[in-house]
Amino acid sequence: MQLKDDERIDDLLADQTMKIIQSPTVFSFSIDAVLLANFASVPKTRGKILDLCTGNGVIPLLLSQESTVPITGVEIQERLYDMACRSIELNELTPQIDMIHGDLKEMPSYFKNNKFDLVTVNPPYFQTTNKDHQNSNDYLTIARHEIYCTLEDVIQSCSKLVKSGGKVAMVHRPNRFVDIVTLFRQYKIEPKRIRFIYPKKGKEANILLIEGIRDGRPDLKLLPPLYAFNQNGNYSEELEGILYGRK
Amino acid sequence: MQLKDDERIDDLLADQTMKIIQSPTVFSFSIDAVLLANFASVPKTRGKILDLCTGNGVIPLLLSQESTVPITGVEIQERLYDMACRSIELNELTPQIDMIHGDLKEMPSYFKNNKFDLVTVNPPYFQTTNKDHQNSNDYLTIARHEIYCTLEDVIQSCSKLVKSGGKVAMVHRPNRFVDIVTLFRQYKIEPKRIRFIYPKKGKEANILLIEGIRDGRPDLKLLPPLYAFNQNGNYSEELEGILYGRK
Repeated sequence: MQLKDDERIDDLLADQTMKIIQSPTVFSFSIDAVLLANFASVPKTRGKILDLCTGNGVIPLLLSQESTVPITGVEIQERLYDMACRSIELNELTPQIDMIHGDLKEMPSYFKNNKFDLVTVNPPYFQTTNKDHQNSNDYLTIARHEIYCTLEDVIQSCSKLVKSGGKVAMVHRPNRFVDIVTLFRQYKIEPKRIRFIYPKKGKEANILLIEGIRDGRPDLKLLPPLYAFNQNGNYSEELEGILYGRK
Repeated sequence: MQLKDDERIDDLLADQTMKIIQSPTVFSFSIDAVLLANFASVPKTRGKILDLCTGNGVIPLLLSQESTVPITGVEIQERLYDMACRSIELNELTPQIDMIHGDLKEMPSYFKNNKFDLVTVNPPYFQTTNKDHQNSNDYLTIARHEIYCTLEDVIQSCSKLVKSGGKVAMVHRPNRFVDIVTLFRQYKIEPKRIRFIYPKKGKEANILLIEGIRDGRPDLKLLPPLYAFNQNGNYSEELEGILYGRK
């Protein structure tokens, strides 16, 4: 497998069964993606999955470990799309995972009535009015800031791409929580499962996991909190289990 | 102090400094009210506080322990209003706490431009289409079900009764969470602080505390979770502290 510039091959999970191409200057996956893949209600043998803002393909790679259904990733940055394609080859997952280099806002007209059972997304977190950001070509800035898509673009696309009764799972920051649930409802995705991740005991939550059902009826479950670290500063037992690929 | 029917005088908190009149058939306060009083951002020496759906006055009585500002309670059921009035007398708090026997929906026109720094509310939790409930005169049924007011009535009234920049604090069930934040925003109360109460580790949340600011700017904090019980089935240290009136 050819590596470009400062790319390296990392273990996808601590169990070392899968590899992923990363780069400190282009894209490296965060724990947020691993948490989302663990949290989402994944169809195991029937249906199909779409991952928007897929980056280097981390979520499709993780989901392929627990599902046999076709998985499609969509990434707007060609450089990241290219990394994702090579990671899929590296893991010999080309029969299951398909990558699209494109804009999520154009996916509803691309897929038309071909809708998905699960749509996952780890979107850019930061709103920005910074002109430097708006004009940035920097890979990391584009992945992290709402430059090519806003939160509303993301949720509207999810809504159009998921089947009625299908699921949309997202990871984001808790400070956008009210916006997220308001937009979910506006676009007919009823929030059903929410989990907050706290860095450790006594701290405010810093990661939000949310899953909704297209055209679902209101009935929300607040799942137990997940602490990332224990009081010693080590990964909590639960997070360690997730990072080792133990459900 | 005259007690009616099956009324009894209970300790308000475990520290036994205050008393409250309760009745198993009319109204007894729940831990939810204690949690709300502990959670709300209480003006200590300036401003004024309103408590809607005040029941037997539990929240005004609790708040009087940490604030010197005038507190008004509103209760639609005359029998509960009467219990609240007698509990206020019993604790010699008539100079600070005022009770109104009335419908919260009529309070905005009653108070007109006289608005509050904090509005607290522990509303009926259960939506009901049950005809038996709709026609019930049962005290507990009315306190628990949306018979005389819906969630939207409650939030609309809070919005009209609180000052711009003032706070609205509510306790409810997590399954209504999306409705609550949607209605808060619709009525210009921006959610700012949220805390979920979990019965114990590994369980889903069963109580939601939320506070918003009228005309506030979006910026939500998800406070650390509170566990009600430890693994032995005893009150957690934190809940015990709250029940003993230790902040």
